[in-house]
Amino acid sequence: MRVISEQRCFGGTQGVYAHDSAACGCEMTFGLFLPPVAERRPVPVLWYLSGLTCTHENAMVKAGAQAHAARAGIALVFPDTSPRGPGVPDHEDYDLGQGAGFYVNATQEPWAPHFQMWDYLAEELPRIVTANFALDEDRQAITGHSMGGHGALTLAMGLPGRYRSVSGFAPIAHPSASDWGRKQFTAYLGPDEAAWAGHDAALLMRQSGFDGPVLIGQPLVDQFLHLLKPEALAGAMADRRQDGAFRLQKGYDHSYFFVASFMADHVDFHAAALNA
Amino acid sequence: MRVISEQRCFGGTQGVYAHDSAACGCEMTFGLFLPPVAERRPVPVLWYLSGLTCTHENAMVKAGAQAHAARAGIALVFPDTSPRGPGVPDHEDYDLGQGAGFYVNATQEPWAPHFQMWDYLAEELPRIVTANFALDEDRQAITGHSMGGHGALTLAMGLPGRYRSVSGFAPIAHPSASDWGRKQFTAYLGPDEAAWAGHDAALLMRQSGFDGPVLIGQPLVDQFLHLLKPEALAGAMADRRQDGAFRLQKGYDHSYFFVASFMADHVDFHAAALNA
Repeated sequence: MRVISEQRCFGGTQGVYAHDSAACGCEMTFGLFLPPVAERRPVPVLWYLSGLTCTHENAMVKAGAQAHAARAGIALVFPDTSPRGPGVPDHEDYDLGQGAGFYVNATQEPWAPHFQMWDYLAEELPRIVTANFALDEDRQAITGHSMGGHGALTLAMGLPGRYRSVSGFAPIAHPSASDWGRKQFTAYLGPDEAAWAGHDAALLMRQSGFDGPVLIGQPLVDQFLHLLKPEALAGAMADRRQDGAFRLQKGYDHSYFFVASFMADHVDFHAAALNA
Repeated sequence: MRVISEQRCFGGTQGVYAHDSAACGCEMTFGLFLPPVAERRPVPVLWYLSGLTCTHENAMVKAGAQAHAARAGIALVFPDTSPRGPGVPDHEDYDLGQGAGFYVNATQEPWAPHFQMWDYLAEELPRIVTANFALDEDRQAITGHSMGGHGALTLAMGLPGRYRSVSGFAPIAHPSASDWGRKQFTAYLGPDEAAWAGHDAALLMRQSGFDGPVLIGQPLVDQFLHLLKPEALAGAMADRRQDGAFRLQKGYDHSYFFVASFMADHVDFHAAALNA
């Protein structure tokens, strides 16, 4: 693991690190924030998965999460959204290929050799961060924005027992029924929709739900509302009596101004589960 | 004035606007945040001046100021750092020309026709924002980062009675004695140093000081410490018995992680003066 930078931030340290990824077959970069208390004892960790076109950097500089994580004594991990580099396949569309990994293990060519973001986030990166930083791996939670909200929800429901709580900012909630989903699942997973079901938050919520609290925030002036399909997830949560809250937020759009505005709520929500 | 964007943020509105500037002879862009309470009554305003290479956007997306301004009921203005555009002179160095206006009225060619940032910020932009938004022009304060800290301090001391309080994040404190200053003042104002004195915070502090509270934050791992000359300003503040505080902040560098980490302190400092 290579240190790209380490900078003091809200009394803790905002770092950026790179490492060779076996899962993705390329060098991967991530951000990690350690709160001040991490100098004295291992801290719980909140994973933040980003949306389409983002790298590890967007949320790290725009979401304002460090202020709240420092106060709550929680580490933050900001992974990249896909494998990257000249040897990694890409596509001219912004929503396919590099920057658009969709948090699945691709089985189709040309994506399969590199686009293994599920394994990267479920297995490889957790091993790397727990080996290198004072993190308490028994206390993990996960959140994300847009495509990252999809990733957070599907990882949380797909790995029972791993995360104590899950939240999403304007998540892609029902990708098998959306142009943000069908296109990418077809490319990465092939046309057989049976292979998609483990990567659709609304379907997973109906099937198994989440053994812990769930918080979803959906802005109402979201320019991508028709692609996110929040009603499918809200309905599934209500039908299942899922412990959690689905918030519809007037006036806000899909941007990081929305994410930053409610980051304190989300970090506090996770802190209640992680510090319990 | 043209609306570029308006987005909900912390219950208020983060806008971006453009207008033809008579002072700068080009179109200028600025950001303006209105807190929720601005829907009911005029609010005080805190000006935030940015550093070298920045546009109106950097602090708007990275400093996290809106959260605190919303709570305190204060508007924020984020001006650009120079005139811009194809008809505006520029220089290959990052610290001269576009993105490096240094908050002075240039008297030298080729800069003079456009680089009138003092007049733009002292006269033109205040008229525009008070005419278009519910701002209380009797309650203004000013802050800034690096070159913007220099701008905030020199405007505050150069326009007595205009601002109730002034603060700076790692300001260029004594530009007449620094490579961040001598080069630009020579280019914009000419070689006669008598013309520079009104644009040097440490000299102005010795000469007249500020009739209100001053807050300076200077990080101690600042990679530009040798260019900022904080000791000249700290010494002048102490010698003059200036109402204020000069904070030296261990571990932090010159970046927006530093600015964001202490933005709450600065906004609260100004709120105490503005809401009094």
